Amino acid sequence: MTNIQESAAQLEQAIRESEEFQNLKQAYELVMTNADAKAMFENFRRIQFELQEKQMQGLDITEEEVTRAREIVEQVQKHENITRLMEEEQRVNGVIQLISQVIMRPLDELYGNPDSM
Amino acid sequence: MTNIQESAAQLEQAIRESEEFQNLKQAYELVMTNADAKAMFENFRRIQFELQEKQMQGLDITEEEVTRAREIVEQVQKHENITRLMEEEQRVNGVIQLISQVIMRPLDELYGNPDSM
Repeated sequence: MTNIQESAAQLEQAIRESEEFQNLKQAYELVMTNADAKAMFENFRRIQFELQEKQMQGLDITEEEVTRAREIVEQVQKHENITRLMEEEQRVNGVIQLISQVIMRPLDELYGNPDSM
Repeated sequence: MTNIQESAAQLEQAIRESEEFQNLKQAYELVMTNADAKAMFENFRRIQFELQEKQMQGLDITEEEVTRAREIVEQVQKHENITRLMEEEQRVNGVIQLISQVIMRPLDELYGNPDSM
């Protein structure tokens, strides 16, 4: 485990120092220091989370909820700093996904998952 | 990204060389080279997967299915090599979970998730 812990700590540091994470941090702080943008973003996140929860529980999403979600997405998309934050989030998520693929490779190979090779 | 890629590759190597992964590999190969154990283990995995799928889709699991699953678990638990494989899987999963926590720390901190601190 020692090697794993050391390598994981190094990777954590590399993520922290990466351009992707630094850009995300900047974009996040820009949104969080503006009361309007902060409220709008948090509202958007809450609704997104609620819909995901419902989906995961196999519950139906009403037409009203879809309309409400669409309105908030439109609102949010007009806000440059929020749009930027969401783009930076996607970039960091992409990095995390790539890392996960690399880390899961030994297991994928062992279990014969052809996607990973 | 260069540092991230290098650190991720190092971590992959550390996982591959870890006692946990080597033990899992050995346990897996022991099960896979015995036709009976292999069939039993694969049957168990298939049923486990089917039940998880149903749960995720919010479908009800019938009493018959629960009984069938319980029977297979009992069968599998009597098989020493399969039990060992499942234990080794849990150990490696534990390692992967710890790694994920470390890697997600920068994001958790940014988003103010108190669990990660």
